[in-house]
Amino acid sequence: MFQFTATYTDLYQLSMAQVYFNKNQNQQAVFDYFFRKLPFKGGYAIFAGLEEILSILEDLRFSEEDIEYLKQHDFEPKFLNYLKDFRFRGTINSVAEGEVVFPTAPILQVEANLIEAQIIETILLNTLNFQTLIATKASRIRNVAGDKTLLDFGLRRAQGPGGYYATRAAMVGGFNGSSNVITGRDYNISISGTMAHAFVQSYDDELVAFRDFAENRPKNCVLLVDTYNTLKSGMPNAITVAKEMESRGQKLLAIRLDSGDLAYLSKQCRKMLDAAGLDYVKIAASNQLDEYVIQSLQNQNAPIDIYGVGTNLVIGKPDGALDGVYKLSFANNKPRIKISESISKVTLPHKKQVYRIFNEDGQQIGADAIGLADEWHLNRMHHPVEPFKNLVIATLKQEALLKPVMQNGKRNHPKKSIEEIANFSKQQLALLPDEYKRFDNPHIYKVGISDRLKEERDRLIAEHKN
Amino acid sequence: MFQFTATYTDLYQLSMAQVYFNKNQNQQAVFDYFFRKLPFKGGYAIFAGLEEILSILEDLRFSEEDIEYLKQHDFEPKFLNYLKDFRFRGTINSVAEGEVVFPTAPILQVEANLIEAQIIETILLNTLNFQTLIATKASRIRNVAGDKTLLDFGLRRAQGPGGYYATRAAMVGGFNGSSNVITGRDYNISISGTMAHAFVQSYDDELVAFRDFAENRPKNCVLLVDTYNTLKSGMPNAITVAKEMESRGQKLLAIRLDSGDLAYLSKQCRKMLDAAGLDYVKIAASNQLDEYVIQSLQNQNAPIDIYGVGTNLVIGKPDGALDGVYKLSFANNKPRIKISESISKVTLPHKKQVYRIFNEDGQQIGADAIGLADEWHLNRMHHPVEPFKNLVIATLKQEALLKPVMQNGKRNHPKKSIEEIANFSKQQLALLPDEYKRFDNPHIYKVGISDRLKEERDRLIAEHKN
Repeated sequence: MFQFTATYTDLYQLSMAQVYFNKNQNQQAVFDYFFRKLPFKGGYAIFAGLEEILSILEDLRFSEEDIEYLKQHDFEPKFLNYLKDFRFRGTINSVAEGEVVFPTAPILQVEANLIEAQIIETILLNTLNFQTLIATKASRIRNVAGDKTLLDFGLRRAQGPGGYYATRAAMVGGFNGSSNVITGRDYNISISGTMAHAFVQSYDDELVAFRDFAENRPKNCVLLVDTYNTLKSGMPNAITVAKEMESRGQKLLAIRLDSGDLAYLSKQCRKMLDAAGLDYVKIAASNQLDEYVIQSLQNQNAPIDIYGVGTNLVIGKPDGALDGVYKLSFANNKPRIKISESISKVTLPHKKQVYRIFNEDGQQIGADAIGLADEWHLNRMHHPVEPFKNLVIATLKQEALLKPVMQNGKRNHPKKSIEEIANFSKQQLALLPDEYKRFDNPHIYKVGISDRLKEERDRLIAEHKN
Repeated sequence: MFQFTATYTDLYQLSMAQVYFNKNQNQQAVFDYFFRKLPFKGGYAIFAGLEEILSILEDLRFSEEDIEYLKQHDFEPKFLNYLKDFRFRGTINSVAEGEVVFPTAPILQVEANLIEAQIIETILLNTLNFQTLIATKASRIRNVAGDKTLLDFGLRRAQGPGGYYATRAAMVGGFNGSSNVITGRDYNISISGTMAHAFVQSYDDELVAFRDFAENRPKNCVLLVDTYNTLKSGMPNAITVAKEMESRGQKLLAIRLDSGDLAYLSKQCRKMLDAAGLDYVKIAASNQLDEYVIQSLQNQNAPIDIYGVGTNLVIGKPDGALDGVYKLSFANNKPRIKISESISKVTLPHKKQVYRIFNEDGQQIGADAIGLADEWHLNRMHHPVEPFKNLVIATLKQEALLKPVMQNGKRNHPKKSIEEIANFSKQQLALLPDEYKRFDNPHIYKVGISDRLKEERDRLIAEHKN
């Protein structure tokens, strides 16, 4: 649906690129993608958007229109000629899409010349930050919804075409389907839907509206019962139509509630349906749902089978953004660092690898360790900031998380389907102990740095202080 | 950049459409677009996205790929044939883009057959809700920034391609430019940018980095001074380069701060620049800015000339969504209503007009009145919910806000430029008294309904209660 050209970037990337180009400074470099703060005050995040950004990077070009436009912005003909042939030809190592990830540790690492690495920064951050945010939100909702059906209904309140990817990311995080047709089309996502209040309103009689809908859409028929009065009008009419469907050998799939006290109403509706012999008719509910409301409904044993989640999912409420950054760690054959007043904002130099640590029984111990890329096994991990906190991990199993996904601008594996990614994510999340998944004061996952990485970082800080 | 096809919608729109199609229920209808709650606890909103949605609607089609996809979803061949020729041929009356708007009153009104009106609902809400949110956020930032330069730097943290439109909407709300190249290209928006920390880091020496940049990009040169140490390294190096530029007859445009205490640092930097005879060099600042931080910086007389605003602008933090809805008010020659337990959520029936009220001196009195479309002048407006609050407006000037913008699917005016829209918005906002613009407990703008509209609404409620 999108024609992303390479001008989907910030102007300064191009300004810097021209300097690199003219000054023969276009050296090989390494950039790390990572975030500093977990969203939603949660204990983990679900990495999403990787397969998408790889596809985007494979096709990224400046169009003729782009070049014409840039001519008006003080770029030199020689450099614009270079941009005409621009391709991303770099190498990317990354955590797999759907993996459970934590702050500080690089999730993805770009190795390319400075020009290519800078030009892709904006679209890479834009894609990964947003999809990781939404997959994480979806995962939190899945955690409290058990095996209930979760549907994304958010497109109308999404941040413009952000909604297109919100649906994709929601599936990575564990949703079952969406009302969003175009994303369903493009990613083979299950699409579903009910009816709007306007449908019922457009008829003079709610019963006739339900009847017409059921006759015309007998498979997957869901009747919206709250346009006028849920218990006195919507439900009796829905039951009448369900019985008529039975007489035709059809089954009403569900009724839907979109207002009022969903715990109370779902229980009343369940009783009415059961009393009418319609125990197979499901109850769908929507209206400002999020993980907290669903948790409350689940705790109250509300007999809701299908949750339709809209705004709060697709905009990643309340955070709205993941603070992911893209930082230079190596260039021109030297490790690079960004100094800050706060040690927690000093970047980690060098090309690195991230290891997930398991105990003798193969259980996660709740720790990732960051080492230099040429270290093969780490002896110890240090808290990145607190000086006296460290952990000996020499005897523990260490699994490398960053793996090659793109070489010389070409992905080195077939594009994964959303289903594959979602299944992988589910399986990885199952390995994470529950304490990291709770909403209130979740357990803090440890992320540390190796002896050598710490030495290198501290050496470079000292160097810059002089 | 986008290929919006008509499947950019919720599945239920198509399910309902097939019923209308088969049951010969495809009557003419009127839908109202409005919102219930002002964003950001503010006193007003800036309507944005209109010119965009009109362009989208003019071109909206189902592609062959769409039709093939829908074949798998239980739609009938006859209906799919109809969709092949689908065009939006309706009529739209709307408030002008950039206008100051308030809750409850229709901002835009669609008259079309039910099928066309439903299929466009999702993309219309998606476009208008988001752009109105961001234009409003931008306007709040403009209100505190006075005549300082405001730049959008948000693309990397935007909600995916939502960032594309966030930049457009930010300009409607009063921003001066953006770092976002692709939106700049498509909407003739001023683009600008500085340099990243990575640029400075990629050099062994900050001074050489600055020097190379200044030589290569002498126009609009902005140096980022906080990579290592703002006052001890970045500023002295920037001053050296500024002096070198002077010797070549060039001028350093600005230095940029991206961390630390911006009030303190900007004052120190100003002193250093002035002491070096560089009083023309501006100071740009960024880092988690929003209207509150900028207000505080302005109150502290921080000598900042250019504010770069990112995440908080482009995601409309903290709200993230405008609660705009699209409600049926007339169909099949009858007024339509949606009942709710809460009177504030009962919809207003009939085709309507909205009037802005002015006193004898031509000043806004802070009130909009909603009447039936065939009322030409209103005598009184009632509070829509509170039973005894009303205001006589018979002698006051009343200006109709809803005007035809699209007829039979074609816009009836040339597409307006962002500059035109932004200028109009600025002028309209200037008419609104300051009390509605303050952040804390802003004055509440009155929106009321006419005698006849109230009668009609109450009659329909009574009818449905029986």
